Amino acid sequence: MIGARLQAFAAELYPICRSITGAGVRDTLRRVGRHIPLKIHEVPSGTQVFDWEVPLEWNIEDAYVLDPQGRKVIDFQQHNLHLVSYSEPLDRKLTFAELKPHLHAHMVNPDWIPYRTSYYQRNWGFCLRGRDLEALGAGDYRVKVVSSLARGSLSYGEFYLPGRTREEVLLFTHICHPSLANDNTSGIAIATWLGAWLAQQPRRYSYRIVFAPGTIGSLSWLKRNESRLPAVRHGLVLGLLGDSAPLTYKRSRRGNAEIDKIAEYALASLEPAARAISFEPYGYDERQLCSPGFDLPVGRLTRSVNDGYPEYHSSADNLALISSAQLQDSLLACQRICEIIEADRRYINLSPKGEARLGKRGLYGGTGGSSPAAREHAMLWMLNQSDGSNSILDIARKSSRPVDVLAEAARELAGAELLREVADAEAGAREFRKIVAKKSPAISKAGKRRKR
Amino acid sequence: MIGARLQAFAAELYPICRSITGAGVRDTLRRVGRHIPLKIHEVPSGTQVFDWEVPLEWNIEDAYVLDPQGRKVIDFQQHNLHLVSYSEPLDRKLTFAELKPHLHAHMVNPDWIPYRTSYYQRNWGFCLRGRDLEALGAGDYRVKVVSSLARGSLSYGEFYLPGRTREEVLLFTHICHPSLANDNTSGIAIATWLGAWLAQQPRRYSYRIVFAPGTIGSLSWLKRNESRLPAVRHGLVLGLLGDSAPLTYKRSRRGNAEIDKIAEYALASLEPAARAISFEPYGYDERQLCSPGFDLPVGRLTRSVNDGYPEYHSSADNLALISSAQLQDSLLACQRICEIIEADRRYINLSPKGEARLGKRGLYGGTGGSSPAAREHAMLWMLNQSDGSNSILDIARKSSRPVDVLAEAARELAGAELLREVADAEAGAREFRKIVAKKSPAISKAGKRRKR
Amino acid sequence: MIGARLQAFAAELYPICRSITGAGVRDTLRRVGRHIPLKIHEVPSGTQVFDWEVPLEWNIEDAYVLDPQGRKVIDFQQHNLHLVSYSEPLDRKLTFAELKPHLHAHMVNPDWIPYRTSYYQRNWGFCLRGRDLEALGAGDYRVKVVSSLARGSLSYGEFYLPGRTREEVLLFTHICHPSLANDNTSGIAIATWLGAWLAQQPRRYSYRIVFAPGTIGSLSWLKRNESRLPAVRHGLVLGLLGDSAPLTYKRSRRGNAEIDKIAEYALASLEPAARAISFEPYGYDERQLCSPGFDLPVGRLTRSVNDGYPEYHSSADNLALISSAQLQDSLLACQRICEIIEADRRYINLSPKGEARLGKRGLYGGTGGSSPAAREHAMLWMLNQSDGSNSILDIARKSSRPVDVLAEAARELAGAELLREVADAEAGAREFRKIVAKKSPAISKAGKRRKR
Repeated sequence: MIGARLQAFAAELYPICRSITGAGVRDTLRRVGRHIPLKIHEVPSGTQVFDWEVPLEWNIEDAYVLDPQGRKVIDFQQHNLHLVSYSEPLDRKLTFAELKPHLHAHMVNPDWIPYRTSYYQRNWGFCLRGRDLEALGAGDYRVKVVSSLARGSLSYGEFYLPGRTREEVLLFTHICHPSLANDNTSGIAIATWLGAWLAQQPRRYSYRIVFAPGTIGSLSWLKRNESRLPAVRHGLVLGLLGDSAPLTYKRSRRGNAEIDKIAEYALASLEPAARAISFEPYGYDERQLCSPGFDLPVGRLTRSVNDGYPEYHSSADNLALISSAQLQDSLLACQRICEIIEADRRYINLSPKGEARLGKRGLYGGTGGSSPAAREHAMLWMLNQSDGSNSILDIARKSSRPVDVLAEAARELAGAELLREVADAEAGAREFRKIVAKKSPAISKAGKRRKR
Repeated sequence: MIGARLQAFAAELYPICRSITGAGVRDTLRRVGRHIPLKIHEVPSGTQVFDWEVPLEWNIEDAYVLDPQGRKVIDFQQHNLHLVSYSEPLDRKLTFAELKPHLHAHMVNPDWIPYRTSYYQRNWGFCLRGRDLEALGAGDYRVKVVSSLARGSLSYGEFYLPGRTREEVLLFTHICHPSLANDNTSGIAIATWLGAWLAQQPRRYSYRIVFAPGTIGSLSWLKRNESRLPAVRHGLVLGLLGDSAPLTYKRSRRGNAEIDKIAEYALASLEPAARAISFEPYGYDERQLCSPGFDLPVGRLTRSVNDGYPEYHSSADNLALISSAQLQDSLLACQRICEIIEADRRYINLSPKGEARLGKRGLYGGTGGSSPAAREHAMLWMLNQSDGSNSILDIARKSSRPVDVLAEAARELAGAELLREVADAEAGAREFRKIVAKKSPAISKAGKRRKR
Repeated sequence: MIGARLQAFAAELYPICRSITGAGVRDTLRRVGRHIPLKIHEVPSGTQVFDWEVPLEWNIEDAYVLDPQGRKVIDFQQHNLHLVSYSEPLDRKLTFAELKPHLHAHMVNPDWIPYRTSYYQRNWGFCLRGRDLEALGAGDYRVKVVSSLARGSLSYGEFYLPGRTREEVLLFTHICHPSLANDNTSGIAIATWLGAWLAQQPRRYSYRIVFAPGTIGSLSWLKRNESRLPAVRHGLVLGLLGDSAPLTYKRSRRGNAEIDKIAEYALASLEPAARAISFEPYGYDERQLCSPGFDLPVGRLTRSVNDGYPEYHSSADNLALISSAQLQDSLLACQRICEIIEADRRYINLSPKGEARLGKRGLYGGTGGSSPAAREHAMLWMLNQSDGSNSILDIARKSSRPVDVLAEAARELAGAELLREVADAEAGAREFRKIVAKKSPAISKAGKRRKR
């Protein structure tokens, strides 16, 4: 049911002609904004962002090519992909030889229109099916591109959900691709629904979902938020989440960040075929978020990797390539990751010398001799391992006991003042050392018997 | 032959009704004391030990249940396990409905009497075969428990063997279980024989063997010896050592303590099927010794793990479950571990620049060209690796050469003043750096030829 | 073709009666010196080198044994191996019983003459085929050894090639074995040709190739060069390189030195069957170079390990055991290792916040949408990983992209001032932190649009 709504929203977004700036991006953000309240940011053309500059804003009205007989042989109205994105305005007659270098066909499949762009080099071009290209003959062609390239701005949207701490979970999805379904109406739909779901959850962390054009959009966001980056505790790039490849987690550049352990654990618990792959610098906005000057703890949840499926960046990446079931499973994976992020706390044992006597606190079965239940086992694990160096997830991995059972045990033990949550491993280890160093109470006088 | 004596001692201990306090424990310690001199400690009821308190002392004379016809349908004299340990004194008439909640049958096997306790919650109860329970009908029953719960003390015994250093090897076995053969007459018998054997060995380390009731006994020992714990260099809990499961080493909480490497190496050399398993907090006294506030370098030598065999904590854990051959192999494993503990020294090379010339010291074959013998190979390994960072066991693991051969090579090299033993890795590395930094003697004058 | 020349040079060296001192060594160095200019060092007899002393110089003219019938039954002129190396001068009549202890046959094969030495214990002896030994009967034998043991010197040769830095690559081969082809005319031939090849390469590092007698030769070199050892960045011992065993890299004592990674990578890229084996102290001059007081980053390139082939140290290690193809492949492996040593630089990214815009520098394709080429991928990897902690080889291992492609990408990026080479990981990390800490330029005024 949620899958069907995700698929419907992807279908709604599919026909829009997005690019890295312009009306298509703003229309997309508006539609996302019907489901979750977005704050829209505009970054003016010409703004310097690190080694880059925000380009002129591009808007497109129409584009076509007329053959020598005056027939419209390429027509932007038929498919967004027919026009190279950021094509400059043009109205010109050309021989076929002059036109040819501006025509792009798919390398492999003659029935697919490829997707091409020229954001940073002023140019124009058309993409078409290989079989249509072959049908074109000599003669004079008329080429018309009714576009504008003008001072304006780049748009991105943010959905911010405050939590109990200011530490943030950063979620990022790219919104710059035109009619490509998996890449990335799937990611936009899932990020939207995930935002709506998060808004209804209790939150320890704050969450920020950014809908931005690829590369220049994430660079702009990084530039505007550079001072805030230390607050990013975990992050995920969301993209390519509707196709039939298994759920895939691409690790952060660090490779051993908490999010890496969390996401791998979550995926393994959901789908046996789920994969974790190593970081590589080619990809989506992890390219920027994980550049060495930032090196954020951000991984990517995906299905196919970029260029990992034949239909990638072609008209065959259409709504038939994605399915409601796959979208729904991807959303569930996001939710599961967020649940583990929330659950993965760290405690110290306040009674660490010997086992605490759970029985007198009603936390352990009264009659001895039979083996402890799962809940009691989980308590023993939490007590034994809580010296600051292990989080619940660490303990789950060591003990093969579920995060949720351990988290529940921890809550009970914290309620009985046997565990105390700590901020991080360093603080935890420090506090724990203090507790251990504390002298145990002197042995009570033999004569003094206490009631239990 | 030793196996037969172990089995006979286990058989001698089997009928005694042990609990965590009382006459059965003292009788057990007295019988151990016929083989090795034990120092008996008494910890008074009411003594506070960390989060626990030593309970009242429990002694039992008789217990039974009479059915409406006056027949003795449950009789403690028939089997110790019939009575829930620490049952309070009682003499009462009850309907079957009132009696029922106090009756315990085995979960799986209707022919086995389960083992149950209620040390810390005042209660009473009887355990019986499932088929006997089913035969009971409605009517008034008479229940009689002739026990006492009174101020007294908890008893444990210690056998201490001084060595050349005060650093200790701590061996622990639990003595609180009544008629259960594998759990733990096996461990008591082996700890006793191991003590007798250790008494006749030369000892670098001091050894302390503690025979104590589980949990409250080890906690009491920890409480009374807290200031001495830094001297515990290695430790082993001994239990469940007579059944047919393969020799099993359960690692210390640290997972990489010296004892972990030593025990794994020893077991692998003795029995191909031997296993090493990770620490988990459920178990015997490693629960207390490896609680995070102590975190002692203590593993456990066992065969089946707790609850790892069907007969666990039932009347089927009887003398037929253990065998003299298995007991003997377990004792050999303990001895082998102790031998490696003793052998695992650490040296530094006093002539570390180039190989020392073994030939001139008569340590190497005179004629060159053929490959070195095992003894010479062992010397090369000891010389090359002795920079303080490697112990003999480390070198054995790297070189796949036997500890004993390396230890013998080290003794010869130390005799030739080419190696010197060091206390630990840190001191070794420091001394070794000094030796390397020392300027080599100036090149002797060319004219001066020395005799060899 | 190079293989044939290597084989021819090995054949030229094969008949010479080398030992650890004397005319055979000098003759060998002279022949090497016809291909590469060697500097010859003489270390006088009696010189103290660490725990050793340079022995008297040994020269040999003739040696034989006459049987009771006056027939020459062992004749040094027939094979160098017939005489135990360093046999003292002798002219004596002996009974067979007196002679017997001085005769050595091969342990396994009765058709092979073994190789034996007695450098440091004054002695004499003969080696012969087992079947010839069996043919000897009782009676008086005449033994004659026309040798000299006298004050003189040990000789070794050095070929030094300065590079742009004084950091050195140290190459070592042993020249003390008489007529043994694989051990080590193969190593001498390859070290010679490698030297000639290196002389024609551009060199970042300086290279030093040492041709020296085993053990006492490398010890003498170490003694004379002790103050220079910190400049040894990488090293290789070359030996046993002509037989049919697969290319084999024996790791340095450190096990994780740069040379270990480099050599393993190089060999894996050349030959699927290539092996890397762990360090062990038995071997050739790595025994001295990797003694714990020096612990140099020196591995060994070999085929068979010592004693790893039946013909080892016997007359069956003759020219038929080695082949021109195997020699040639061994030389290629040396060259490949040197190429990677030269290529394995370390950079820092000068524009590490986000990806640098390669397009505006002409380093990236103008039209977007299709996947980057191998060259572009290599640039992304170099930019992403160049934070000082990763060298090109590290990046090659992470990315599975060839060292050469990454090195070329790095050169282009350095040319565009996007990367800067750093001396080592520590300096690199320090400089990189400074670059990251630098405030990004303020966002340019929106109105100011730059040309690209």
